[in-house]
Amino acid sequence: MATTNKEPEIITDKNQMRKWSRAIRSQGMTIGLVPTMGYLHEGHLSLINESHKRANVTVVSIYVNPGQFSPSEDLSTYPSDFHGDLLKLMALPGGVDVVFHPRDLYDYKTTTTSSNVNKDIIDEKGGRVVSCVEERGAGHETWVRVEKFEKGLCGKSRPVFFRGVATVVAKLFNIVDPDFAFFGKKDYQQLRIVQRMTRDLDFAVEVIGSEIKRDSDGLALSSRNVHLSPEEREKALSINRSLFRAKSTIEKGQVNCKELRDSVIQAISEAGGKIDYAEIVDQESLEAVEEIKSPVVFCIAAWFGKVRLIDNMEINV
Amino acid sequence: MATTNKEPEIITDKNQMRKWSRAIRSQGMTIGLVPTMGYLHEGHLSLINESHKRANVTVVSIYVNPGQFSPSEDLSTYPSDFHGDLLKLMALPGGVDVVFHPRDLYDYKTTTTSSNVNKDIIDEKGGRVVSCVEERGAGHETWVRVEKFEKGLCGKSRPVFFRGVATVVAKLFNIVDPDFAFFGKKDYQQLRIVQRMTRDLDFAVEVIGSEIKRDSDGLALSSRNVHLSPEEREKALSINRSLFRAKSTIEKGQVNCKELRDSVIQAISEAGGKIDYAEIVDQESLEAVEEIKSPVVFCIAAWFGKVRLIDNMEINV
Repeated sequence: MATTNKEPEIITDKNQMRKWSRAIRSQGMTIGLVPTMGYLHEGHLSLINESHKRANVTVVSIYVNPGQFSPSEDLSTYPSDFHGDLLKLMALPGGVDVVFHPRDLYDYKTTTTSSNVNKDIIDEKGGRVVSCVEERGAGHETWVRVEKFEKGLCGKSRPVFFRGVATVVAKLFNIVDPDFAFFGKKDYQQLRIVQRMTRDLDFAVEVIGSEIKRDSDGLALSSRNVHLSPEEREKALSINRSLFRAKSTIEKGQVNCKELRDSVIQAISEAGGKIDYAEIVDQESLEAVEEIKSPVVFCIAAWFGKVRLIDNMEINV
Repeated sequence: MATTNKEPEIITDKNQMRKWSRAIRSQGMTIGLVPTMGYLHEGHLSLINESHKRANVTVVSIYVNPGQFSPSEDLSTYPSDFHGDLLKLMALPGGVDVVFHPRDLYDYKTTTTSSNVNKDIIDEKGGRVVSCVEERGAGHETWVRVEKFEKGLCGKSRPVFFRGVATVVAKLFNIVDPDFAFFGKKDYQQLRIVQRMTRDLDFAVEVIGSEIKRDSDGLALSSRNVHLSPEEREKALSINRSLFRAKSTIEKGQVNCKELRDSVIQAISEAGGKIDYAEIVDQESLEAVEEIKSPVVFCIAAWFGKVRLIDNMEINV
């Protein structure tokens, strides 16, 4: 383990967090925010390094957001290790200044009437769905929706997901008031949604996307990888391997997206994965592309056992 | 005309507005924001007086927000008189510090792909509708939705209205960064939606509602009143008269909302108005009430000729 550096201040209260940020701002310093759901890995740490380069101080938020999980998803089993996370942060050169670790960002401690469940989103099968926030009737009514971007790719099988992401990021921006916020490109759709939301709602935040971090075997780092058995993990390498192969095929001149997708779907399926989607989309608009003429990103989601993994590759032609 | 006071600084650029606010904040001063669509009347001026009491400096925004109008509504005929507004502000004791008068809050001057029209909202007849922002394909994709509150009362006949209001207020909060924001109780549902949004998204803004201002004949002040003919105006008094009568009936012991509503609907209809809605709702949740047991607000919308007017009365039992 590397030498221990700075010990971060741990803030759990949103008013205290805001007060801290205002004090920092009043000193003319800039704030970098790295929003995470904890169980930190090298991908997160690389975002913190990016923040060190740009901002005077760095805040890491650790919060598993119930607003982006539907009741049938893995909120309760999402991995967490707060103590381990702190050790990783302290071992990181430069450390971080604050860990913002709120207990519940949807508890307003007010007496306003709670709503009942408000089923506003339709899933793939035409059913109405809610997030874990609405399920428990917290009285939270406001959702930020990047209406077009939230529907495709991961949005198809996770219809409340990006609504929850955009909303919690808006909350974090308002509480932490950062100058910069850092998101990994592994969650490519999330990055684009947050960037579009930031622009469309005029948040004074620069949203920066960082490159995907991979293990030595090429698997994209994810907190969920811990749930993979060794056999599942071996099978899951079909994702990154087929993505790299697709990139090389494109560089040799292949522009037909159907053929590229079919080849990736076949490789992952043969390895034992269950494809959720494999799509080639425009890097900015996230709209599906049939023939590659401009910068695209090849996005994949697939199940290995009970674990759903995503990965992608930007291809700049 | 009263004596001319302070001449406000007119800011049209959002970056310049933000820079001004940051400079004010760095001096430790607080900012009050009065968002308006212009064509100012005594109701707006009373909000500015509230701001004088609470904040060190006052910003009035004048912006007719296309995001809250559907293409079939009165965006193009909404009254405006910027020069007259400035004269009123200068004549006001204490004046205002800044008039924020952006040309277009949905023009991002970036190269990101514009979306086509995204019809996400369903109207009363089951048709899909959009706002004027989507109709012109501005590439704006992000909308703030106070999902339950946006549907009732005015939301029934104006399905994109509150989505547009919540979104533009979020934008103004991010650009102006106020400590306080002032809204009139005449737009009661709007006030509650803005308050809920502010809480749910953790904006560091205190949203304050001010009492309705009425003309000497009792008609609630509205920029749209200018469109009423003298005859229509006389008929429109049936709204405020029947509301005051209802209040007095309730104070005498009437608790049955159906009877109260029927009586108001009859009075307005007989005067020649066309009722959009007449509802008695809880002051906090805006949910319809059948029997009055706790503080309610009696909300009315009705058409007189081509002019749709709203009014309401809080009744605290």
